[in-house]
This record gives sequence, structure tokens and C-alpha cells, in this order.
Amino acid sequence: MKARYELYYWPSIQGRGEFVRLAFEEAGVPYVDVARLPVKQGGGVRAMRKLLEGAGPGLAPFAPPFLKVGDVLLGHTANILLYLGPRLGLVPDDEESRLAAHQLQLSVTDFVAEIHDTHHPIASSLYYEDQRSAAKKRAALFRKERLPKFLGYFEQELERSGGAHFMGASISYVDLSIFQVIEGLRYAFPNAMGHAERHAPNLAALAGAVAARPRIAAYLASPRRLPWSEEDIFRHYPELDAKR
Amino acid sequence: MKARYELYYWPSIQGRGEFVRLAFEEAGVPYVDVARLPVKQGGGVRAMRKLLEGAGPGLAPFAPPFLKVGDVLLGHTANILLYLGPRLGLVPDDEESRLAAHQLQLSVTDFVAEIHDTHHPIASSLYYEDQRSAAKKRAALFRKERLPKFLGYFEQELERSGGAHFMGASISYVDLSIFQVIEGLRYAFPNAMGHAERHAPNLAALAGAVAARPRIAAYLASPRRLPWSEEDIFRHYPELDAKR
Repeated sequence: MKARYELYYWPSIQGRGEFVRLAFEEAGVPYVDVARLPVKQGGGVRAMRKLLEGAGPGLAPFAPPFLKVGDVLLGHTANILLYLGPRLGLVPDDEESRLAAHQLQLSVTDFVAEIHDTHHPIASSLYYEDQRSAAKKRAALFRKERLPKFLGYFEQELERSGGAHFMGASISYVDLSIFQVIEGLRYAFPNAMGHAERHAPNLAALAGAVAARPRIAAYLASPRRLPWSEEDIFRHYPELDAKR
Repeated sequence: MKARYELYYWPSIQGRGEFVRLAFEEAGVPYVDVARLPVKQGGGVRAMRKLLEGAGPGLAPFAPPFLKVGDVLLGHTANILLYLGPRLGLVPDDEESRLAAHQLQLSVTDFVAEIHDTHHPIASSLYYEDQRSAAKKRAALFRKERLPKFLGYFEQELERSGGAHFMGASISYVDLSIFQVIEGLRYAFPNAMGHAERHAPNLAALAGAVAARPRIAAYLASPRRLPWSEEDIFRHYPELDAKR
């Protein structure tokens, strides 16, 4: 019997788990979003905490998201996608392509961490309201320096790859992750992103193409897709965005 | 002819390149630290910048360090070690072990980014002196919350693996990276680390064992090992450390 794919992530946010959800949804491969299941069905946050505390096989994950497939327990979003990519047909199968896709995904990881830290520059354990002054400074420099640097990098590499997809002819998990980041930035920084996107036409077109893919469109319209929120990585605080 | 290993990293700091240097040094495998070579021999920072700007094969790296091996150009420290691990004999050769080592390395990556951000919580582009007030707040919460969390996690996983090495019987690149982080933390936060290490006896023993390995000991005593400094990731600013 084939082991089922069990994704463990916080049940009320998109967060880093969303990059894995999008891969399963595009592939049309069934997965269980364990912490969103009722406790009676073995779900809930408690099931996730047990594995975080080391009750599973192999290494304990440092943090959600993590993936369980039979006796395999894998942490870190990019590592999960490294494992799933060939299995879901979302990356070319040679080693060089897999390392290249992973390299791009690790830059997505860094970008996402910097986006998170615009609203939490001092500590994740503090409320936003208790670090708002530092957040305004960090967000201003993020909008001025880091946002154009990351978008410029991905735009350049997408263009070098032909413009349609990052990994050549077919869609890969990198394209799905970039869609998520572009959409998240549009939510969090509508003014700054409205400006920055003008210099990233290939990225904008890719985000639109991903959203229009039948399985992704169905997913986005389903209750499985959680809403954006100010409990999540991409947060819309008008004082952190550029002026209109 | 076998392609030579070319490492590209800033020539005057240990930084993230050090994790790759340590792997080559322990393996006793020759590598060229390109940006540290004279310009006449094809070295210098300019050679590195060319590849960063997209003059090489495949993807342009987002940032140093990156590795060039013939037509392969790889960015991101953890991705470089994922590639080098089996080739240098610094990870067990099955897929599960390689993913587990990589998972640990990605937690090292996150730890290192958080260590860096203790002195640069607002932006890497600003001087430390211009973000010192935010740095003091971030460093205090890092010492209180994140330092014990990361050390506790690695200590637990090392103990679960038998206490001597992270990947079972033999040394792996993860052990070398943990050595670097422990040593860096001792340099940057001598007071906080003196306290924290008491709860991480396996990590402290591992750091000592790595330092005593013949090739690592020879490397550390050589001019190839750059000194710690306040231009680097691990910086000793007494006001960011705990009181004695």
C-alpha cells in the first residue's frame, strides 16, 4: 500500500505551508492537511505538536510545515519541495535541474523571511504593535532595496529561461511559489507592488498564468484556500506600504 | 579531465562561505577560493561579480557563496553542501540521510540569518551604529528565546543520533557547520553562550572533536582561516551580549 502524503501546518493561515499545498493542488495528488482535520479523525494542532516534540520517525522537525510519508518525516518548505518535486512531476528529473529549482526555491525562502521581518523586525514573539517603529524603518528599506532586488533577480532568471516558466517548458513548483509570493506582495504592499511590478512583466504574466490553471483556479475558489490575514506572513499594514 | 572545484565568496570574511570551506578542508579535497586569488591568476572580487551578473552557465546566483564545477554553477550554502556532501564523503549516501542532513543544514541557515540580524535588524545596507537601538532589543530576545531554542533543538537531535555525530557513525558536513556556529557564538556572545552551553554538552563536545580533527586543526592554524571580525556574521559587540 502506498503511504499517504500528510502535510502538517498551522490550520488557520496560508503561511509557509501554502507553498506545499499549491504543489499538491497543481499535481492533483491527494494529501491530508492534518492539523485542519477534526481531532476525532486524528487531526488538530495537537497531532502536529506531538511530531514536533519528537514522537515521529527520524529527525524532529524544527518548525511547521513538515511532511510525513510513511516513515519519512521532512521539515523545511524548500526541502519538502525538493523531495516532492520529482514525485509530483513538478521539476525536470535530472540532478542539475533539481538543484537549480531548489536554488531558486531557497531564494524564495529568503525573500519570504525578509517579507515576514518587515512587520516583525525585533522578534516573532512580540506583537506587531510593540515593534511598529522598527517595522516602519525596516519596511521602508525593504520597499526601496530588497523588493526591487528580489523581483529583479527572479524577473531576470525567468526571462533567461524563456519567460513562461522558471524550469523551461513545463510548470514547476518554483512557478507556483512565485505566484504565491507575487499575490502575497500585492496583498501586503499594494502601492509599492503596483510600482515594482511594472519592472517585472514576466513575473506578473506568470502569476496570472498560474492563477488560471484549472486545478489552481479550482483550489483558489475552494474553502481549502485560506484567506490572507494579519496573522500571516503577508500582512497588509498601510503604514508599512508606500504612499499612493 | 576532472573539473576543479571553484568556490566564490567574499575574500576577507568567514561568512557563509566558511561552511563550504570547512567541508573541503575536512575532506582534503583541493578547491580554489577564487576571490582570494590575485587578479592576475583570474581571481579577485571582479571575477565573482561577473558570475553574479549572469556571465556563467545556468542560473545566476542570488548572492555569494556559490560554487562552480565545470558547467555547474550552484548558489546557496545549503544547496552547495547538498551537492558536495556525497561527493566529498561527508554524508551517508541514501536519499533519506541526504534529506535529513539537508534539513539540519537548513535550520543552521535560519539560525545564522537570525544571528546576523541581531546586529542588523533593520537593514544590511545600514551601518550597525545606525540601528544599534533596535539591535539591542533584537539581541536581548535572541539571547532569551532563540539561542536556547536553536541550541536545544540541535542538542536534542545530536543526542538522539548517539551524541557523537549528527548523521550516525561518521562525520558529516552538518557536524562541521555546527562547529562553526558554536565557535562563532562563543566569539560573538561569550557571556550568553557560556551560560547556554551548559545545557548543550553534546554540542560542546562535538565542537571540540571537530576542532581536534587533524585536517581541521591544520586548517584553523593556517592563513586560509580568516580571523573573526566585526565585518562578519558573528560580531562581538559587548552591548549585544548578556552581562557577565
